Amino acid sequence: MITSQTQDIIPEKWYNIVPDLPEPLAPPIDNSSDRSSIELLNSLLPREVLRQEFTFNRYERIPDEVREIYAQIGRPTPLFRARRLEDFLGYRGKIFVKFEGATATGSHKINTAVAQAYYAGKEGIEEVVTETGAGQWGTATALAATMNGIRSTVFMVKVSYEQKPLRKKIMSLYGARVYASPSTETPFGRSVLEKEPGHPGSLGIAISEATEYALEHGIRYLVGSVMNAVLTHQSVIGLETQKQLELMGEEANVLIGCVGGGSNFGGFTYPFIGQGKEVEAIASTAEEVPKLSRGEFRYDRMDTAGVLPSVKMYSLGADFVPKKIYAGGLRYHGASPSLSVLVKNGIVRPEEVGEAEVIEALQVFARTQGIVAAPESGHAIASLIRYCRAHREERKNIVVNVSGHGLLDLSIFDRVGI
Amino acid sequence: MITSQTQDIIPEKWYNIVPDLPEPLAPPIDNSSDRSSIELLNSLLPREVLRQEFTFNRYERIPDEVREIYAQIGRPTPLFRARRLEDFLGYRGKIFVKFEGATATGSHKINTAVAQAYYAGKEGIEEVVTETGAGQWGTATALAATMNGIRSTVFMVKVSYEQKPLRKKIMSLYGARVYASPSTETPFGRSVLEKEPGHPGSLGIAISEATEYALEHGIRYLVGSVMNAVLTHQSVIGLETQKQLELMGEEANVLIGCVGGGSNFGGFTYPFIGQGKEVEAIASTAEEVPKLSRGEFRYDRMDTAGVLPSVKMYSLGADFVPKKIYAGGLRYHGASPSLSVLVKNGIVRPEEVGEAEVIEALQVFARTQGIVAAPESGHAIASLIRYCRAHREERKNIVVNVSGHGLLDLSIFDRVGI
Repeated sequence: MITSQTQDIIPEKWYNIVPDLPEPLAPPIDNSSDRSSIELLNSLLPREVLRQEFTFNRYERIPDEVREIYAQIGRPTPLFRARRLEDFLGYRGKIFVKFEGATATGSHKINTAVAQAYYAGKEGIEEVVTETGAGQWGTATALAATMNGIRSTVFMVKVSYEQKPLRKKIMSLYGARVYASPSTETPFGRSVLEKEPGHPGSLGIAISEATEYALEHGIRYLVGSVMNAVLTHQSVIGLETQKQLELMGEEANVLIGCVGGGSNFGGFTYPFIGQGKEVEAIASTAEEVPKLSRGEFRYDRMDTAGVLPSVKMYSLGADFVPKKIYAGGLRYHGASPSLSVLVKNGIVRPEEVGEAEVIEALQVFARTQGIVAAPESGHAIASLIRYCRAHREERKNIVVNVSGHGLLDLSIFDRVGI
Repeated sequence: MITSQTQDIIPEKWYNIVPDLPEPLAPPIDNSSDRSSIELLNSLLPREVLRQEFTFNRYERIPDEVREIYAQIGRPTPLFRARRLEDFLGYRGKIFVKFEGATATGSHKINTAVAQAYYAGKEGIEEVVTETGAGQWGTATALAATMNGIRSTVFMVKVSYEQKPLRKKIMSLYGARVYASPSTETPFGRSVLEKEPGHPGSLGIAISEATEYALEHGIRYLVGSVMNAVLTHQSVIGLETQKQLELMGEEANVLIGCVGGGSNFGGFTYPFIGQGKEVEAIASTAEEVPKLSRGEFRYDRMDTAGVLPSVKMYSLGADFVPKKIYAGGLRYHGASPSLSVLVKNGIVRPEEVGEAEVIEALQVFARTQGIVAAPESGHAIASLIRYCRAHREERKNIVVNVSGHGLLDLSIFDRVGI
């Protein structure tokens, strides 16, 4: 939400870390000889997104229309000093929170959805399509499409569709057509349902349906994380943070975020890391999905179905099936190639956090700062608390990115009787 | 959420309209000769709240501690120009939105809860208690208590307790003890349950339980609306709006808000009205609860049970039982005495809006501005849309107060198949 005095905090350019990485990114490769999934990207993604995916430009101008939508959906998001949390932890330095939960859709996902939908619309495309698991990405796509004056279709994993009716409602409210996947809308969905009418769905199936639907209807497919272009769009988080800190007369020493595919983490930290700032960067992952600390750095499929190309990244294997954990957004088997390179080179330090610690962190954050954070963001808060407890006497400035609010995920507290 | 550049928008003083009303307020009176409910206030309310209730001071200094908490819970809330809504409506003037849904608890209620809990704590009281229907007020009380380092107890109308488990969860997360009312915690609750073990509860019963509990434990009771002190605390909304408009180089011509008890409406409009600004003020109420347009201006009980005094106000009768409408926060039978005086004197114009129009307004607002507003606030948005459609060629600046977000009230869209 914009007020005149904060408008100029929204950056004019996105930052792309690719040219500043300590080693070159390995190129994506096809994962089958039947059809080229790299060629397929030409028909799937908006042209400008594809160009940004492979560019070595350090900066990309944010179109005026996208900046204007950023302002309407709540950018700049707040950066505030969490004094009560500092007091509670007895930490002698300062803690700052960048709160992406303050966007209209409640998470950082909207930052790239708005850009991708804009580029699709610019090409004359009248509809975009995507898949969604927990619902955050689908919600962002739905609003981004509406705000760019185009339609949207979302294939939502059936089990989530049934368990998260509120998410489905918000997407519909924004004007999206939402199908439980597997659906009867695509040949692939129909083939799955033929074999198993009660199939609960999976992200892999939903991706296959969404991409098939895109190709069949000649529309564009939006990607929620992992890819370079997505992380570039998300750099708006870190760039705003830098400007906000500067206005406060502060510098960042430690940056903490959570990692699903890596987009909120990359968007938040890369402007600092890439510009050679001396920062400690901590990437918090779920104990149950420890791709960065226990995955292998190798070529692997981006999606289970293998529709998209394979990329070189830390991965637990595309067929890795994580436990049905409380933080759906962190279940992804791999991590963005650029983030993987930074971890491999010791520039980003991964850390695993388990459920009990996350729930405690969410409670502490709610009671000290009043914010009900998303379970995914709870990992970043848990890593922050861990850091402060281990370094109480330090006087560093820690900035934590709280990627979303958790108002629609309160069921995670069932287990502790809240 | 605060950023350094916006901190000074939070006012240093609250504004109290009482000395600026066009006619004096009639004093509250006891509604039975058995016990004086006015005297009872001395034991129920924090002393400073009671003083503010009866003061003729035009301004009250906001304690530094309260201002600091205001900053932590999201003040100043955003004021933004709703350009997409303007375009959609083809309105040639400007529309500004003040968004109280951006506070940590998602509505304006926290503005007074923080102040009341602060004054209770200042007196050495270690716990506060209140009742809640839909849950917004209980949530605000729970967080306000926590942030002031004291405990809280909330009696939640049983039917809401069962239908709105998320609200109960948030209150617990903030550290409140939440009881379904009627409960076994108070003599009154036990007497109700004895007669009817499956009693669904009511706001009247919950108020009786909360006040009884306060007296029994020697703690303080917090009031959510209607009273002068509450509207004074809520003036932070209008005072911020004035400063934000000034920073944008704009003036307000039309102010629109919704009315339950009158606290968000009064808080928003009074700083403009009381300072003699020429503004058109529109108070939007639910068609099913038309107290301002079809109520009687007379002494009536503030609460069904008659624990609190009677005041002179527009009322449908304390025993009026509204339909179980979609906007729980607007079901109150009366309206704040000061607001009633302003309506009676033609300074505030009441307007009734029905469910279909509200649902359409919420959809329009979500699709144009991305915000899912509360059903209560949907009334204000509906009145805004009505105004713009009737005055398309006007070039007035309209400011609408969106008092809360509706993320936890999405079920209202069930009826239209969303």
